Amino acid sequence: MLTITIIGMGLIGTSLGMALRAADVQTSPLGAVRVTGYDQQSRATSTARGRLAIDREARSLADALRDARLVLLAVPVRATPDVLRDLAPLLAAGTIVSDTGSTKAQVCAWARDLLPAGVDFVGGHPMAGSEKAGPQAATADLFQGAIYCLTPSADARQEAVDTAEAFVRTVGARPYYIDPAEHDAYVAGISHLPFLLSTVLVEAVSRSPGWPEMAALAATGFRDISRRASGDPVMHRDICLTNQAALTRWIDEAISLLTEVRAHLATDDAARLDALFRHARDVRDLWLESKPGLRPGEAAFRDTPRVERPNLLGFRFPSGRKDDE
Amino acid sequence: MLTITIIGMGLIGTSLGMALRAADVQTSPLGAVRVTGYDQQSRATSTARGRLAIDREARSLADALRDARLVLLAVPVRATPDVLRDLAPLLAAGTIVSDTGSTKAQVCAWARDLLPAGVDFVGGHPMAGSEKAGPQAATADLFQGAIYCLTPSADARQEAVDTAEAFVRTVGARPYYIDPAEHDAYVAGISHLPFLLSTVLVEAVSRSPGWPEMAALAATGFRDISRRASGDPVMHRDICLTNQAALTRWIDEAISLLTEVRAHLATDDAARLDALFRHARDVRDLWLESKPGLRPGEAAFRDTPRVERPNLLGFRFPSGRKDDE
Repeated sequence: MLTITIIGMGLIGTSLGMALRAADVQTSPLGAVRVTGYDQQSRATSTARGRLAIDREARSLADALRDARLVLLAVPVRATPDVLRDLAPLLAAGTIVSDTGSTKAQVCAWARDLLPAGVDFVGGHPMAGSEKAGPQAATADLFQGAIYCLTPSADARQEAVDTAEAFVRTVGARPYYIDPAEHDAYVAGISHLPFLLSTVLVEAVSRSPGWPEMAALAATGFRDISRRASGDPVMHRDICLTNQAALTRWIDEAISLLTEVRAHLATDDAARLDALFRHARDVRDLWLESKPGLRPGEAAFRDTPRVERPNLLGFRFPSGRKDDE
Repeated sequence: MLTITIIGMGLIGTSLGMALRAADVQTSPLGAVRVTGYDQQSRATSTARGRLAIDREARSLADALRDARLVLLAVPVRATPDVLRDLAPLLAAGTIVSDTGSTKAQVCAWARDLLPAGVDFVGGHPMAGSEKAGPQAATADLFQGAIYCLTPSADARQEAVDTAEAFVRTVGARPYYIDPAEHDAYVAGISHLPFLLSTVLVEAVSRSPGWPEMAALAATGFRDISRRASGDPVMHRDICLTNQAALTRWIDEAISLLTEVRAHLATDDAARLDALFRHARDVRDLWLESKPGLRPGEAAFRDTPRVERPNLLGFRFPSGRKDDE
């Protein structure tokens, strides 16, 4: 029986608990698990308990760590150092700590500086989410088929990495090993920039005096492109502030492309607009074809993850940089 | 029996035909209709016929106009003047011409300059569509519950406007009278800017050497914000080039907001980022609440249009600037 402690009972923490407890004990690579939940707001922990995400509600961090072999942080990124500081004196040697933050370089640096020796840190980031927040929005299948980035610290024992990987497979996701800086540069482009463009769209139109009439006319195109703007502001603020360099580079890229389009408009350059729109369409269509499970309305990839490993904690899984890809 | 001719058998033209022919003759404000279809590419016309979008395939523009009382142009915006020029000598007095172009000021100016006296022009723009193109992507319910902008020319007879409005109700849409310039400014913000942001996102990430790895990581967030980039490049090129002023204003607005975010990142300004993200979220959530039928996956508004008018062509419908809003 493996005890897993989840700190932070928001959308991600609660969904992880639900996924862990919904896993089939017979086939899951972690076998039987017991999930402890803790949140500063005890109401969130109760909600998570009511949603069957956890077996036990902890009253304090110290209480939460009782018997914990794997501790998962599911808190806003910038709360991470405070939580690590509070955890540090309470963690038993051999405990594995992972997180779910959307940026990894800063988080890994904090873990290196703040966690005691003998505790292994394996950074994590599930490529799944929702524009809704809180334990009531959680679902057991949120991670089903999703890629789950793993950034083990340089000195993490292989056994700890294997346990983290087994956890990822247990919640239905696909482990993807990646360097923290590389991770941050990539997700800034495919996740944080989309959030910003979505937000900029909503903010731009809403500042217009014509917004009430525009709101009446806006339909599905506006709905989809604006979707990310409904995301949790605190989470996104933290993401932005822990990934400034990469995000700034992408903002500059977007500004430069918008300036390019503006110039084509000013010179009535049909050929260049046509070429640009055609290229973006072809890239997007090719990408979508490569993700057969990402058809509109589906949250998961079509291929369910193969769980071909035996049900034994500590079994040495073959580990590669880009498993399953 | 009213004969309606549709010129252009793409997504919109074919969907209009399907919607017209699927309407209930007993309750539709147009009563029984007969739909003629024409496309420069005869294969498109055949496909539309095969999809039950039209009763008759026309071989030429002259053939297409036989008995036509209402002529609907469903061609890329910048093809409009050529089609109007070709139509002009063939149109009988009393014929009503409408279009489906996404920009209206330029189209209305072309109609004024090119159509003969005695022919009434009522510009139209259904606020519905798909990122897919062509007659094979057409659906009979594409316009169900959608807002359909109408921009009658200043000298259009009321009777012609009434027929256009009856046509809009027949395809299941909600007529929305609006000034052409106002229309163009608004849709530039809620439709053309979203398309551009979507395209800029895809283009930015695809120009990065890391794109192959980013493509593997990209998930639902990227999918939704990039959706409009899959739209028809020719249609969007034409939209951009017939709505330059309004679109340029919105591009400038987006660049200015991106620059604002960039500055907040550089100064680590958590409070301002927080306020911006919170405001955009609140605006978007409020907007979504006002559109109960626009939940993800739904293409239509929940309220089905009230068709409270009798089934008599030529009946004088009460006409207001913003019917149904």
